[in-house]
Amino acid sequence: MAFFDLSLAELQEYTPDLAVPDDLDAFWAGTLAETRGFDLDATFVPVDNGFTLVDSYDVTFSGFGGNRIKGWLHVPAGSTGPLSTVVEYLGYSGGRGLVHSRVFYALAGHAHFVMDSRGHGWGWSTADTPDAAADSGLQAAPGMMTRGILDPATYYYRRIFADAVRAVEAAKASPFVDPERIVVAGISQGGGITLAVSALVTGLAGALVDVPFLCNFERAITLTDNDPYQEIVRYLRRNRPDAERAYRTLSYFDGAVLASRATAPALFSTALMDQTCPPSTVFAAFNRYGGEKSISVYPFNEHEGGQEHHEVVRLDWLRSLFG
Amino acid sequence: MAFFDLSLAELQEYTPDLAVPDDLDAFWAGTLAETRGFDLDATFVPVDNGFTLVDSYDVTFSGFGGNRIKGWLHVPAGSTGPLSTVVEYLGYSGGRGLVHSRVFYALAGHAHFVMDSRGHGWGWSTADTPDAAADSGLQAAPGMMTRGILDPATYYYRRIFADAVRAVEAAKASPFVDPERIVVAGISQGGGITLAVSALVTGLAGALVDVPFLCNFERAITLTDNDPYQEIVRYLRRNRPDAERAYRTLSYFDGAVLASRATAPALFSTALMDQTCPPSTVFAAFNRYGGEKSISVYPFNEHEGGQEHHEVVRLDWLRSLFG
Amino acid sequence: MAFFDLSLAELQEYTPDLAVPDDLDAFWAGTLAETRGFDLDATFVPVDNGFTLVDSYDVTFSGFGGNRIKGWLHVPAGSTGPLSTVVEYLGYSGGRGLVHSRVFYALAGHAHFVMDSRGHGWGWSTADTPDAAADSGLQAAPGMMTRGILDPATYYYRRIFADAVRAVEAAKASPFVDPERIVVAGISQGGGITLAVSALVTGLAGALVDVPFLCNFERAITLTDNDPYQEIVRYLRRNRPDAERAYRTLSYFDGAVLASRATAPALFSTALMDQTCPPSTVFAAFNRYGGEKSISVYPFNEHEGGQEHHEVVRLDWLRSLFG
Amino acid sequence: MAFFDLSLAELQEYTPDLAVPDDLDAFWAGTLAETRGFDLDATFVPVDNGFTLVDSYDVTFSGFGGNRIKGWLHVPAGSTGPLSTVVEYLGYSGGRGLVHSRVFYALAGHAHFVMDSRGHGWGWSTADTPDAAADSGLQAAPGMMTRGILDPATYYYRRIFADAVRAVEAAKASPFVDPERIVVAGISQGGGITLAVSALVTGLAGALVDVPFLCNFERAITLTDNDPYQEIVRYLRRNRPDAERAYRTLSYFDGAVLASRATAPALFSTALMDQTCPPSTVFAAFNRYGGEKSISVYPFNEHEGGQEHHEVVRLDWLRSLFG
Amino acid sequence: MAFFDLSLAELQEYTPDLAVPDDLDAFWAGTLAETRGFDLDATFVPVDNGFTLVDSYDVTFSGFGGNRIKGWLHVPAGSTGPLSTVVEYLGYSGGRGLVHSRVFYALAGHAHFVMDSRGHGWGWSTADTPDAAADSGLQAAPGMMTRGILDPATYYYRRIFADAVRAVEAAKASPFVDPERIVVAGISQGGGITLAVSALVTGLAGALVDVPFLCNFERAITLTDNDPYQEIVRYLRRNRPDAERAYRTLSYFDGAVLASRATAPALFSTALMDQTCPPSTVFAAFNRYGGEKSISVYPFNEHEGGQEHHEVVRLDWLRSLFG
Amino acid sequence: MAFFDLSLAELQEYTPDLAVPDDLDAFWAGTLAETRGFDLDATFVPVDNGFTLVDSYDVTFSGFGGNRIKGWLHVPAGSTGPLSTVVEYLGYSGGRGLVHSRVFYALAGHAHFVMDSRGHGWGWSTADTPDAAADSGLQAAPGMMTRGILDPATYYYRRIFADAVRAVEAAKASPFVDPERIVVAGISQGGGITLAVSALVTGLAGALVDVPFLCNFERAITLTDNDPYQEIVRYLRRNRPDAERAYRTLSYFDGAVLASRATAPALFSTALMDQTCPPSTVFAAFNRYGGEKSISVYPFNEHEGGQEHHEVVRLDWLRSLFG
Repeated sequence: MAFFDLSLAELQEYTPDLAVPDDLDAFWAGTLAETRGFDLDATFVPVDNGFTLVDSYDVTFSGFGGNRIKGWLHVPAGSTGPLSTVVEYLGYSGGRGLVHSRVFYALAGHAHFVMDSRGHGWGWSTADTPDAAADSGLQAAPGMMTRGILDPATYYYRRIFADAVRAVEAAKASPFVDPERIVVAGISQGGGITLAVSALVTGLAGALVDVPFLCNFERAITLTDNDPYQEIVRYLRRNRPDAERAYRTLSYFDGAVLASRATAPALFSTALMDQTCPPSTVFAAFNRYGGEKSISVYPFNEHEGGQEHHEVVRLDWLRSLFG
Repeated sequence: MAFFDLSLAELQEYTPDLAVPDDLDAFWAGTLAETRGFDLDATFVPVDNGFTLVDSYDVTFSGFGGNRIKGWLHVPAGSTGPLSTVVEYLGYSGGRGLVHSRVFYALAGHAHFVMDSRGHGWGWSTADTPDAAADSGLQAAPGMMTRGILDPATYYYRRIFADAVRAVEAAKASPFVDPERIVVAGISQGGGITLAVSALVTGLAGALVDVPFLCNFERAITLTDNDPYQEIVRYLRRNRPDAERAYRTLSYFDGAVLASRATAPALFSTALMDQTCPPSTVFAAFNRYGGEKSISVYPFNEHEGGQEHHEVVRLDWLRSLFG
Repeated sequence: MAFFDLSLAELQEYTPDLAVPDDLDAFWAGTLAETRGFDLDATFVPVDNGFTLVDSYDVTFSGFGGNRIKGWLHVPAGSTGPLSTVVEYLGYSGGRGLVHSRVFYALAGHAHFVMDSRGHGWGWSTADTPDAAADSGLQAAPGMMTRGILDPATYYYRRIFADAVRAVEAAKASPFVDPERIVVAGISQGGGITLAVSALVTGLAGALVDVPFLCNFERAITLTDNDPYQEIVRYLRRNRPDAERAYRTLSYFDGAVLASRATAPALFSTALMDQTCPPSTVFAAFNRYGGEKSISVYPFNEHEGGQEHHEVVRLDWLRSLFG
Repeated sequence: MAFFDLSLAELQEYTPDLAVPDDLDAFWAGTLAETRGFDLDATFVPVDNGFTLVDSYDVTFSGFGGNRIKGWLHVPAGSTGPLSTVVEYLGYSGGRGLVHSRVFYALAGHAHFVMDSRGHGWGWSTADTPDAAADSGLQAAPGMMTRGILDPATYYYRRIFADAVRAVEAAKASPFVDPERIVVAGISQGGGITLAVSALVTGLAGALVDVPFLCNFERAITLTDNDPYQEIVRYLRRNRPDAERAYRTLSYFDGAVLASRATAPALFSTALMDQTCPPSTVFAAFNRYGGEKSISVYPFNEHEGGQEHHEVVRLDWLRSLFG
Repeated sequence: MAFFDLSLAELQEYTPDLAVPDDLDAFWAGTLAETRGFDLDATFVPVDNGFTLVDSYDVTFSGFGGNRIKGWLHVPAGSTGPLSTVVEYLGYSGGRGLVHSRVFYALAGHAHFVMDSRGHGWGWSTADTPDAAADSGLQAAPGMMTRGILDPATYYYRRIFADAVRAVEAAKASPFVDPERIVVAGISQGGGITLAVSALVTGLAGALVDVPFLCNFERAITLTDNDPYQEIVRYLRRNRPDAERAYRTLSYFDGAVLASRATAPALFSTALMDQTCPPSTVFAAFNRYGGEKSISVYPFNEHEGGQEHHEVVRLDWLRSLFG
Repeated sequence: MAFFDLSLAELQEYTPDLAVPDDLDAFWAGTLAETRGFDLDATFVPVDNGFTLVDSYDVTFSGFGGNRIKGWLHVPAGSTGPLSTVVEYLGYSGGRGLVHSRVFYALAGHAHFVMDSRGHGWGWSTADTPDAAADSGLQAAPGMMTRGILDPATYYYRRIFADAVRAVEAAKASPFVDPERIVVAGISQGGGITLAVSALVTGLAGALVDVPFLCNFERAITLTDNDPYQEIVRYLRRNRPDAERAYRTLSYFDGAVLASRATAPALFSTALMDQTCPPSTVFAAFNRYGGEKSISVYPFNEHEGGQEHHEVVRLDWLRSLFG
């Protein structure tokens, strides 16, 4: 496909004005305080994954609203810990999948914690966590992007971002995890969640942010024809008077805004033909990101990004990070 | 487009074996009893619709789970009632819309009661009623078809079918409405809901069932590539082990099963090129329908069906019905 | 979908150079004189529309070339007139439809005159008026856009624009219509015709111009992939040497050119994702429009524009206009 | 693409019941008598085609309604005649094109007469003949298939079939043409016209009928999603009450009906993946064809049929025919 | 999507007549003898895969024509062997990928040998093995399906099937591999190759055949619109006279024919909505398969088949097989 | 479709910086020397084409690597020569076709030499020449664009460009051909080859370059979504590290680079809606072309360009050239 976004030179300089709510920090402090009002109660139950090289645990902990959130923890078979750890958030439409599905970082000797995504699980993998909130039934275009979008307090991403912060805390509750050596990671929606966690959690060792979603919303939804950003357009197409309220809500969740509050070193990636998470929206976050940072640019790729080639880059980056 | 379903001669004889749960009647009796456990509390607030010929009222009543359900009631300006009445249920993705949007039956001198669809409102019209149930956040393929599909008790259509029964009761609570002259009506999803109400409510004067959805599910989801039936396929594609449970749930909501319990006279319509609600699935319901019945067949139409030509047929049918 | 046209700020300043034929006024004066050479002979035959709230009349009058043009006149049941009146022109591919199909303005207490479109009627509604001109068989890409395009004298839109002027005169022939309170109105092609009538008829009370077609042709046909503008491209793709003649013809029919001759107050609407009638082509007409004017902009809509939300705006605007 | 029609064995036996109007022969006799009421007045004007090997003439003659129909006559440079001759009718959307565009049969030593198609010329080639009939402006779905379809007397194909008969007579008026050695030929729509001419003209030497259109209409329009057959579906989709009248009209023009009246030897071709002119509709004509006949079947082709491979077959067949 | 193939009951009985060349066994015996005329020269070079749990080796061996074929061998870190082993063949368009990309069976404690596919590597993964045969430049529709299709001796699949037999021999050359406990496996094209190897190699412990390609060619290419089967149609569409020769060639490579010669126990899988490798073509092979066999059927899946759910089934099957 | 490239005014000034390898001339000198190391051995065998006006010869000569390349030579029947001659190269996916398929220039009195394209022949016509090089089996995205793209020495277009130079030499070996009056010509890929031959052969009388492919690669592959340019994107999408090597290779074959070395007068054509060979990439070559030049611009055409209208222009241009 053709290039459709800014040139690489323009991308490297792209720093759009973004709306930052006055009460952004208070909003998130309040959200996390409310979430932490529920006992974390992280449990780790061993489960047979069919593999001889990896041990896996079925994880459950309390996320936003006290809802019980699922996850997996994978470690090299026979490990005792504490291990360097990757906490991974997942892409749109999928969930934690079956126990054997995602053990990549464990193969490289790390503890690999996979957080399930509430209400997801229809797409590239299954999930086991409902979005058990009254607000999940608010009118919305199908999908997650507009659930509760008329108010930051009811927006879906408030719930999953809060879950994600608690996932780091749940990981730290495991003896396999070295709390000083936690990297957060994710692709696409997982990358957007990673940006939020980078902003909301201190003491992280690093962040892996691949083709992140949920950045620079106003540009994103008018630059691409692709879902999931287009869910917002479909909602506003019908619910014409709600645009202003929706934009206000999104400003609390914009990964490009939150990125400026991050401090951990980060490795980003983007693809110049990515119409799902356009490169300018990725660079909007990268250019504002508050910590040390580097970015891999894949010129001919769409939303798949660097895939196996970038997996090598990520493993190398982790090797450098953890010495 | 080409014909893709049975021939008209085959359709007229098409009576598939359909699974009928042993406890079907008990299930619905229990559901309605539970719903009626909440005070109906139907309110009618006059509202300016911009028209001089029609008076409109903003309706609210308690549906499933006691959730407050919205609607509109339209009557000829200056009417005092009681009037012959059409209670209309709506098609997939839309809601009650703005107050002036749907006054068709009022123009012909009837009271026209439009029930909002909980959680809908992203598509062809807006809605004002959330699906305010904890179960609305269960994992599902986006859309309504698989929300809570693993158990009849949690399935979305349990809630809206119960709302629909209560809508008739809410209509009867208005002085404009003659409770002996109520016709239920709907197109597509509205037609499927109409079939359910025809089965669950006694004393109806008639039913208008156009290109109904929610009929003969097993055939429907393997005969057409179109949404919304394909939402079920997308869910089962990923959640492979859930097929049996999903099929069991659907058997409680199949319009072709429920149709056999109806007794009011009915006018159906179907279109032979309708890939959204294939004609065989419509005839599955029509051929089993328990009351007097007739059907208009539109050979060259897709899901739009008879539209303006069938509106004339409907107005004539109502004229005959109400004398 | 993504934005594809100028930004809103650019649209508000967009005033392209447009070719204005030297003999534009003479051309239209001659066309109308020739048309008026045929007796108008407007007839109004009462017809049953199935409604109790609206009375309808089957209208026939002589348009271009003396061809008999059909229409409907709807008034509140029992009206005697004279009433404020909306003369409505129709969108591409449709016609006046069945008698009950379009009574919107009558519901608000106005007389509602719907003009049929000659030769249309295959798309969103039926028609009853042939394009009974010898020139209708000239070679053309299928559709109306290139019928007779090699000469302004033979172009299809010469005929329908002349019909539209005569429709106002036919409306005035009815006792239900107050000739001092006539608003012309239309969506898409109907909006383009409305612009032409606004330029060619004096004494109008107002104009409602929604997502108008037939404006700023040179830009339109090279900016969008959508029909009907692309009919012109398809014709010129094959008939390569005809481009100059076609452009010359179109300059006599460009709503953005004709708009400058209008004087009645007008309400426009446009949608920023409208690829059928791109917003820049709408603003080309709006920015040149000669009367008082305002415009509603719908950012996330395609050619459907403001629909029910804009219907409210229109009813309010008419209420203000007519006091 | 996949096979979608009958198997080859079924095709070879496929002889559907087809409606044959009682007055079919009278209808065509009357049509031709009326057409011959206008002076044929065939003229042949030499024109430079840019080639040194072929001489070309610009042909004009009077067709249906006395309308002047264009054509080309090509002969080997320096020929004096009389020559064996191919009169060719053209496919849907195209016309006679430029003078140098179609000289195939002349290269093989025949006179090659190309008849222009009235009102065509937007697609694969240009045309120079308008459909100069008042009836050409009757409401229709865009394209030629439904122009005047409510009455055999007004149907477009009445006019072009009559033109086609006159084209043979025009050819005979040329000294280059041996009237005893005329073959009629055409691909797709040209094949359908060829079938009609085979039925309506006696004394032909042969017929070349490739992937013919306009056969077995009822099956065709419900078997394929492709244009131009789908034009009829689009028309009937909107104009629902017109189906019976349209079917009646089509029965006068069905190539499979007319084929039974033919007597000249014929070479047919069809392709098993042809969704534009499905093979069963071709075999419906072939199996009824009244003269000696053979057919080439191309299993893996769509509507392009045998192309260059079948050109060889055609040249060989002509060589055998003309000795 | 809709079902498009036989019903499950019909599939279970589906045993089409298939052409079996008289010299089939001689052809393959000759091909393998010729291939074995080149020294196997299997080499295993250790390579860093970035993982701590798996050791990997870069494999090279001589395949058809003596061409050097690449592969990976993965074993649990620190293994000494001999191990139960899975030799895996790959799907169309991909290759062996990067060293870390496919280690699934090693995670379960097996040796995992991945054979690269000559000339592949543009699609879902990269490859490192050219199709270094003079015949690879024969005219063909792009892709592998028609390379050299006019003669069994030059057909692409002759080369890769021979490579695949040699891959088992190369695996046996490794001290990590227990030659008595080798299972061959593959998905899609890999499944087709697995069927061939099952027929051509004795002493295998088992076969895993998922949604296999290259079966029941005549039905496949006329039943589906999907690539890669459609490559054959595209070739024959142009090269019309070559159909018979192509069909003859394919009969030497049909997995459904070869399956009858297999003796090892096998686990198959298929998906009822698989338009790439339609279920009837899979059952054509399964029903003829010569060894013990079972099949998993996924009703709502397309070519992705059972994926993670079937991975569990496969791991369990291997566990049972190897005790 | 819409315009998508530079405006006409910008196109006329468009002269991008293009990478020119230091050893470009040496590379081609070496390639041609190596090719000429094989005996040309041009043979001309008379063959029946079914026509009486044209004589045809089946041509064979030695191209790159000594591979035997096929072609046709057509001359007016009975010609003795020497004649003005057009050597034509062919578009992507096709080949020389059947003997009667392409005789256009012969009809105008020229000798017409058609060179077959090695390895082509699956698309718009057949071919008879394999790409009989070992390198043809190197990994590549299907199609010709990436065969051997990692090295100029192995790239497919090295072979066919060398064939094309030898084709001129083969033509000169025929007594029908006047070596002083040879024009090279081609459409699309044929136009790209023509540019290369214009640069590599001296003494040509002219060049006809229509909608040429293979120009300004870096812009082309990131400006259009169409094949064949997108083959390169598909290759690099997977084989991410190969971009630099691929770009280096392409710089040796860029028609816009080679054009500057041409000296013969040339007639170009381009179409402003051509997404296969975008107009800017054509103007990149035209603006650098070294000889006298003119260009026909078709504003509303896609890749079909000027077709019959441009055939007239070409015949006129040849008439002027040859006096």
